Amino acid sequence: MDAFNKLTEYFSEFPGIGPRQAKRFAYFLLTRNQNYLDELSRNIAAIKDAVTLCTSCYRFFLKDSPKTAVCSICANKNRDTSTRMVVSRDVDLDTIEKAGVYNGLYFVLGGSIPILEKNPERRIRAAELVSMLENNLKQGVLKEIIFALNANPEGENTQYYLEKFLEPLKEQYNVKLSTLGRGLSTGTELEYSDGETIKNALKNRQ
Amino acid sequence: MDAFNKLTEYFSEFPGIGPRQAKRFAYFLLTRNQNYLDELSRNIAAIKDAVTLCTSCYRFFLKDSPKTAVCSICANKNRDTSTRMVVSRDVDLDTIEKAGVYNGLYFVLGGSIPILEKNPERRIRAAELVSMLENNLKQGVLKEIIFALNANPEGENTQYYLEKFLEPLKEQYNVKLSTLGRGLSTGTELEYSDGETIKNALKNRQ
Amino acid sequence: MDAFNKLTEYFSEFPGIGPRQAKRFAYFLLTRNQNYLDELSRNIAAIKDAVTLCTSCYRFFLKDSPKTAVCSICANKNRDTSTRMVVSRDVDLDTIEKAGVYNGLYFVLGGSIPILEKNPERRIRAAELVSMLENNLKQGVLKEIIFALNANPEGENTQYYLEKFLEPLKEQYNVKLSTLGRGLSTGTELEYSDGETIKNALKNRQ
Amino acid sequence: MDAFNKLTEYFSEFPGIGPRQAKRFAYFLLTRNQNYLDELSRNIAAIKDAVTLCTSCYRFFLKDSPKTAVCSICANKNRDTSTRMVVSRDVDLDTIEKAGVYNGLYFVLGGSIPILEKNPERRIRAAELVSMLENNLKQGVLKEIIFALNANPEGENTQYYLEKFLEPLKEQYNVKLSTLGRGLSTGTELEYSDGETIKNALKNRQ
Repeated sequence: MDAFNKLTEYFSEFPGIGPRQAKRFAYFLLTRNQNYLDELSRNIAAIKDAVTLCTSCYRFFLKDSPKTAVCSICANKNRDTSTRMVVSRDVDLDTIEKAGVYNGLYFVLGGSIPILEKNPERRIRAAELVSMLENNLKQGVLKEIIFALNANPEGENTQYYLEKFLEPLKEQYNVKLSTLGRGLSTGTELEYSDGETIKNALKNRQ
Repeated sequence: MDAFNKLTEYFSEFPGIGPRQAKRFAYFLLTRNQNYLDELSRNIAAIKDAVTLCTSCYRFFLKDSPKTAVCSICANKNRDTSTRMVVSRDVDLDTIEKAGVYNGLYFVLGGSIPILEKNPERRIRAAELVSMLENNLKQGVLKEIIFALNANPEGENTQYYLEKFLEPLKEQYNVKLSTLGRGLSTGTELEYSDGETIKNALKNRQ
Repeated sequence: MDAFNKLTEYFSEFPGIGPRQAKRFAYFLLTRNQNYLDELSRNIAAIKDAVTLCTSCYRFFLKDSPKTAVCSICANKNRDTSTRMVVSRDVDLDTIEKAGVYNGLYFVLGGSIPILEKNPERRIRAAELVSMLENNLKQGVLKEIIFALNANPEGENTQYYLEKFLEPLKEQYNVKLSTLGRGLSTGTELEYSDGETIKNALKNRQ
Repeated sequence: MDAFNKLTEYFSEFPGIGPRQAKRFAYFLLTRNQNYLDELSRNIAAIKDAVTLCTSCYRFFLKDSPKTAVCSICANKNRDTSTRMVVSRDVDLDTIEKAGVYNGLYFVLGGSIPILEKNPERRIRAAELVSMLENNLKQGVLKEIIFALNANPEGENTQYYLEKFLEPLKEQYNVKLSTLGRGLSTGTELEYSDGETIKNALKNRQ
């Protein structure tokens, strides 16, 4: 297939992009000069070289020189090593860091588990999570694992799977498993709230 | 002014109705038969006779015979009299009742206090609230007052005002003041959450 | 049934109003004073007395004294009596008058004909239209009937029915039947246009 | 700058993409394997080689072998060479072709002229248009130029500029300049129509 239609296909796979916008992207590229295209092309091919996975929290981070195995958060001596917050994706981590209210460490699952998924272990870094946690728990520094997953069925399914998966670890090391609080989020009007949110907001009143 | 334009004006005051839809309402009435109009008219004039304010929680309830001073919730022996949930409006109470997760009593403020309001006491039933609470506290049954206000600036302003207003009562009777929990509401995706919600969700983790 | 629930039911029949907003209307009325309710009630009962149907164009108009049989548009000597624009509802007429681009007369059908309707003649003032047209055509003033119906299936169905219904009149008096032009409406972007609109815009190019 | 942030910047320039989605694209690429990235990269660098500008209508078309100077539409003997439809972008042409109602030729301006633009000639292929038209007019085949621009201020501004620009040509060769018809587009309800659309629909009635 020609490069134009191939690109339209590729762009259709981008998150949130349908065939119509994919085609607009291809037309957009045609209006750029070759220099722009070469630069874009070069950076796409090189993106994996620029970035590496943190060996501790599995977030992507920019390779620096001298090369380090862990990201700037994991390497930061001022972060609280007694809590690990488990998130689905790097963008979730970015949003939480931006809020500036959490000073512990993270773990990026790299995805979430859809309802009825037959091979949940393929969707997330479950083995890597256990291995990292075990390591940390043996050293006696880790006290709490915080699940920070989306408040939707896929997020709840992921948490349900992980809670079972981490059960032995919890028993053995007596580590606390916690979940981000449910309740009224900013802007919520009671009149339009669902029963689940009201139930949680009532339970978590303070 | 004629009845048509007068009605258009009246309907424009209805909650959420602009002049265009108000006019459509007036045209709609013109297409109904006189019987319908007379019935509608009669019920509007009589609505206050059908409904009365509960002398305990100040919600509207249907008058029954024999006449009762308190609504069916306040009269229900199975409700827990140790908690009072303070809401802005009857519709909030309806939504919470529908959720079926709260078994205590209510108090309807009849409104909320906008930011910069100069006469906050005119907007809500603050005096009635204090009088009812005092009465209940003297009897020793009331243990907790739960604020269930909208999670927006107007709701927060209302709560701020009430907390100050109820300070003496709290001191004297050692009653607990609580607030519906903040956090992730149903469906929230972390990536799109605001900092305030993340902060609350983290604080209220469990 | 009590007045509160009865009103909620009535308001649910208002155009564009669901049960939730209907209930908010009922609660809103409870917060008004009796004077307001009596006034609203009185005007609803009296709306039909304030307004009458024009015997020529069948639009609603305010009764004046001395009483007139025709509305201010039909009575206006400066309006062009050679064209009649056929619209579904009074609100359509209002919108067209507001545009200030049409100086002829109107006829209000009082509705439109849904697809598959078995008794189309019950939905619109078809007999009244024919009678008025015949009258006007005999006098030799009327030259053109303009269909101004919604550009959707129901509007098209109504026009299709009327064209057949008026066929004999058209033959006998050689009156012109025309339709509002189809094409790009204000703000339309070609990229997002449907095939039908493009076809019409092309056919009606000028 | 590193490839990750560079790509985020590049993607932010894509049509309709903000910084947040641009970042999601970059993270998305990190989850692909190197093979995918190399393929995507290769096709982006090669897109201009796959596609060429038609020397007659200036639309992009896929290069075939044997190489042709004109696109499949311009080369098609069954197309009507007496009309040229002037559009802003390739996507507009695609939408019109999809409608299947136009059998003439096209000309793609490559853009449109914003209100207050100081160098309108830089925004569109005005010189190329004149040159092509002149060529066609000399041969005596071209009879009508159809403007098919967006029905918004930028489209109208572009047309206004072109009408002036083509004035001499029109005079000399007596070619007809036409515009896609304005009026009710599919789905339009009269009640919600703007005055401009009603004016055009009335003028273009038929």
